[in-house]
Amino acid sequence: VTDHTSFDIAHLGNVELLTPTFGRSLWFFQDLLAMRVVAEKGDSVFLRTWDEYEQYTIKLTASDAAGVGRTSVRASSQEALERRVAAIEATGLGEGWVDGEVGTGPTYLFRDPDGHSFAVYYETERYEATDDKPALKNQASAFPGRGVNARRLDHINFLAKDVEANGRFLADALGMRESERIRNDDGKFAAWWFHFSLKSYDIVYSDDWTKHGNRLHHVAFATDTREDILKAADIFLENEIYIESGPHKHAINQTFFLYVWEPGGNRIEFANAGARLLLDPDQPVVEWSQEERKKGQAWGMKTIESFHTHGTPVVGS
Amino acid sequence: VTDHTSFDIAHLGNVELLTPTFGRSLWFFQDLLAMRVVAEKGDSVFLRTWDEYEQYTIKLTASDAAGVGRTSVRASSQEALERRVAAIEATGLGEGWVDGEVGTGPTYLFRDPDGHSFAVYYETERYEATDDKPALKNQASAFPGRGVNARRLDHINFLAKDVEANGRFLADALGMRESERIRNDDGKFAAWWFHFSLKSYDIVYSDDWTKHGNRLHHVAFATDTREDILKAADIFLENEIYIESGPHKHAINQTFFLYVWEPGGNRIEFANAGARLLLDPDQPVVEWSQEERKKGQAWGMKTIESFHTHGTPVVGS
Amino acid sequence: VTDHTSFDIAHLGNVELLTPTFGRSLWFFQDLLAMRVVAEKGDSVFLRTWDEYEQYTIKLTASDAAGVGRTSVRASSQEALERRVAAIEATGLGEGWVDGEVGTGPTYLFRDPDGHSFAVYYETERYEATDDKPALKNQASAFPGRGVNARRLDHINFLAKDVEANGRFLADALGMRESERIRNDDGKFAAWWFHFSLKSYDIVYSDDWTKHGNRLHHVAFATDTREDILKAADIFLENEIYIESGPHKHAINQTFFLYVWEPGGNRIEFANAGARLLLDPDQPVVEWSQEERKKGQAWGMKTIESFHTHGTPVVGS
Amino acid sequence: VTDHTSFDIAHLGNVELLTPTFGRSLWFFQDLLAMRVVAEKGDSVFLRTWDEYEQYTIKLTASDAAGVGRTSVRASSQEALERRVAAIEATGLGEGWVDGEVGTGPTYLFRDPDGHSFAVYYETERYEATDDKPALKNQASAFPGRGVNARRLDHINFLAKDVEANGRFLADALGMRESERIRNDDGKFAAWWFHFSLKSYDIVYSDDWTKHGNRLHHVAFATDTREDILKAADIFLENEIYIESGPHKHAINQTFFLYVWEPGGNRIEFANAGARLLLDPDQPVVEWSQEERKKGQAWGMKTIESFHTHGTPVVGS
Repeated sequence: VTDHTSFDIAHLGNVELLTPTFGRSLWFFQDLLAMRVVAEKGDSVFLRTWDEYEQYTIKLTASDAAGVGRTSVRASSQEALERRVAAIEATGLGEGWVDGEVGTGPTYLFRDPDGHSFAVYYETERYEATDDKPALKNQASAFPGRGVNARRLDHINFLAKDVEANGRFLADALGMRESERIRNDDGKFAAWWFHFSLKSYDIVYSDDWTKHGNRLHHVAFATDTREDILKAADIFLENEIYIESGPHKHAINQTFFLYVWEPGGNRIEFANAGARLLLDPDQPVVEWSQEERKKGQAWGMKTIESFHTHGTPVVGS
Repeated sequence: VTDHTSFDIAHLGNVELLTPTFGRSLWFFQDLLAMRVVAEKGDSVFLRTWDEYEQYTIKLTASDAAGVGRTSVRASSQEALERRVAAIEATGLGEGWVDGEVGTGPTYLFRDPDGHSFAVYYETERYEATDDKPALKNQASAFPGRGVNARRLDHINFLAKDVEANGRFLADALGMRESERIRNDDGKFAAWWFHFSLKSYDIVYSDDWTKHGNRLHHVAFATDTREDILKAADIFLENEIYIESGPHKHAINQTFFLYVWEPGGNRIEFANAGARLLLDPDQPVVEWSQEERKKGQAWGMKTIESFHTHGTPVVGS
Repeated sequence: VTDHTSFDIAHLGNVELLTPTFGRSLWFFQDLLAMRVVAEKGDSVFLRTWDEYEQYTIKLTASDAAGVGRTSVRASSQEALERRVAAIEATGLGEGWVDGEVGTGPTYLFRDPDGHSFAVYYETERYEATDDKPALKNQASAFPGRGVNARRLDHINFLAKDVEANGRFLADALGMRESERIRNDDGKFAAWWFHFSLKSYDIVYSDDWTKHGNRLHHVAFATDTREDILKAADIFLENEIYIESGPHKHAINQTFFLYVWEPGGNRIEFANAGARLLLDPDQPVVEWSQEERKKGQAWGMKTIESFHTHGTPVVGS
Repeated sequence: VTDHTSFDIAHLGNVELLTPTFGRSLWFFQDLLAMRVVAEKGDSVFLRTWDEYEQYTIKLTASDAAGVGRTSVRASSQEALERRVAAIEATGLGEGWVDGEVGTGPTYLFRDPDGHSFAVYYETERYEATDDKPALKNQASAFPGRGVNARRLDHINFLAKDVEANGRFLADALGMRESERIRNDDGKFAAWWFHFSLKSYDIVYSDDWTKHGNRLHHVAFATDTREDILKAADIFLENEIYIESGPHKHAINQTFFLYVWEPGGNRIEFANAGARLLLDPDQPVVEWSQEERKKGQAWGMKTIESFHTHGTPVVGS
């Protein structure tokens, strides 16, 4: 992976989630995560977290099966966007320009080798709060004070038939840098973490044991504190949301986490990184062996079995 | 201020603090903040926080008066370093190359118009833990589990006779971007916040009411949680460290904070930003008026008077 | 004050608050504190916190002025109730038996020398959750996951013309024990803290500088963590509730606190005691001098002036 | 179990722990829990937590095997002590009076049917801080600001061959009240929680699958916040202390918990109850069925298998 000292992509922009239980999934994001609906279009609603500076964070789309639709990233400038499109086209996996949705400008589409749909854009319309004006003007909208109060999108973890091939594609196409990875005894990558800028990860590939293609492991939202995540667990308990694992602390990248399944079946993580930032522009990748991973999570909890058996769409393994 | 979509400077590297009570100040950083001494040279010791990937974070130097010595920043690459040196030399305030200290490579020195000493370098020696090896290998050294457990340097706030002139210099010399500022009714900037990458601020200028020059408002360390800061207050209370203000939440940049004076008199902040990041590469600056600042801090606490009367070195006003 | 090794009164039961802005006060308790309305009667609504095992916690009553109505305490047994009624009658301040309200059994009324209305009862109807059934059956009702999520009533602080006389009355009438007190240089008590059982305080008297009589300093709700109180501050900020002081830590009894004024003007505290319990059955009282109180709160914040100028009802001083 | 409205026993006083690795166990309590040695006698040291108002909290004794020695409780008054001694003698399991140790007055010894050694006393010498004077005088000694900062003893959980018989004995002998219990499908109690005063539990019996007798499940310390417990996990991770389970939240009594094994093998819990108190003097017992317990802990984590295979002393099952 090439060493980069600047990032053409500023950050993960938004993610489309597919759900076979649209009404219940909407309740989950709107009522439990305190997200706000900003637009509706066809079978989709567009929802935003309170700290989202753009128009929306999640596009929720009714579908036959759970899974992930398009994942969009925002370029740092018009020039950066053009550099990235050129790089993507060189991979042969570009799909061309389309109009952006809900405040997003010209958008270039592409797919990773595993078939996940991606988009990159630069122009964006900042959110102007109306009845949700914040008390402090350096904040996108008012703190909702309801449920989990999901602050912002944090990262996405895709299942992929070939982690290494998809990771290399991502590094080339988006100029991402790797932060950590798991390499099995057979030399294959079990999972690979990539980041933009100071965040320790933004996009991750994990091995898809089904070799199906185009599947999701999870989407994560950032919370301000670990206490927010403990409180989230209480809220999910009361609301009969399936809590799969956590709260606990990952050994990899040291994130404090909670995993639940939204009603449609997609795995959703709530993540807190504390003050951990990847400040070093030449940060060496941290590689974990199969043996090391047997220790489980940071504080010794064994990694839950369903991490390796559940993904969306659910397919016969 | 020019719009930048990449940053030639990766982050604030280290800060030299001057103290007239060397032994007591060393106790403060070593025992209360759980920092580790990595080198001694002449009248100085070099201390590191547990999450510091480089050799050191603070150079503590015995002196007649409290204050700030040299502030060093790390460039993102050799090319970025060269670009910055060229930009600095163009300002006429460059001072030339010197050998770096304690693991730092070739270092270029300069001063801001107010007289603060700066250094920029790229090459650095990563810290290799010995008897302080961490349990998780993606961490620079073991979590000390003592006192405040200061995680990493967060930012520095300088007093300056002319906030605007120094801020513009910083933007030109280091390619920093502004995030927030206070503009008084007379049009002058009372304070100006600048950042690298996703952090909301790394270097700040505040008005020096004494017009003395080369003075420090405070140096800040990042903690993982707001709870760490509450615990820090208990620890400072027990150890008779003067707590000046907080814990509370800033309106500007929304940092949760605690200010104390280390035994030498320098103001030290402990800061937590939660999950707040400046993701937008075109983030518009947030400007606060004199009137707005009268509201005090985020939750209504009046800004403490000594914020505008105490700086180091202490000089007649 | 007599030494007691058992307590005839189990705990503070409920408090009636008077408000001149009934609708807005109801919104405060219902929407911001996540309390639930369980009954309405005349000009009053009865609201419960989610952890309230009885029917209600606060009786909110429309009135010309803010202030406190009746404060009720629950006896530990029928025999204990009878002992207390005998003790109260011996003071000459008993007012006789009435039927209880909203699930409360036979209730004996009395007044303290300052004129505050009190009630004591033993029989009570436990709350049976219906549509608010909790996921865990050892909890009174579901965790609301909204706003401040006020857990339970914690204590009440009355203003009194004569702190000492009222405190002695309380000790005699209810068998409370003192925990801490402030004694001014003139020998008079500025404030006196009394408790039942292991809690460090349940009822407090503070000096009423107006010498008006029957006034309230504040009513407090308990939260599980200090983080809950920090989050509460954000919620009050967004909802334009006046935050008077805090979050900070009291020196006296070491409670972590936040004070706001509900829309009707009554001061409301949110309090967290951590794991602090008064385990010692012979705990000596802790007395603070006027000089000691000048140090302010635990971490040095000066006690806010309006603590000594605002009470309800608001009266000319 | 008889209904009590007052408690002759004020609280759990101190616990003797036996360890086959005395030096390492001492390091655990002294360095990691920040406890202070107050006395040494023969093969034992006496250690105190910083919030202990008496002289000591844990008596640590070198022994061939791990396990629990004597558990002491403090009576509420001399009369209460005498009532308890009479009640104990009536059970036939009294062992008579001895001199107390390290500040404890006349002490009456007895054993529960399972063979665990108990003591009850009333007179005690309060701790007078010397070089550990606290900044706030309503605190037993200075907050150490080291490691886990264990605040106070919280509860003890004994293994017993016959949970029901031992529980009934405890209720009779000490006047404790039950709070929660697990009853298996065969009608037998799998575990039974008993409490004094407002705490939700102080002494617990769990089924000893080995039918050995006189064994320990765990001893617990209270922390102020859940964050303290998360931090504790980091500290135990760095210090190679075996973390058995947690941090997580119990369904039973809803305690936030972390279980580790101290170097001698005894299981130690760190527990936080939030603001949860058993205020109701007539609180009905909460009974959990075998089926209900299959749900695991509050947030769904399965109860770790070693909870039912590890106790001290370790014996062949």
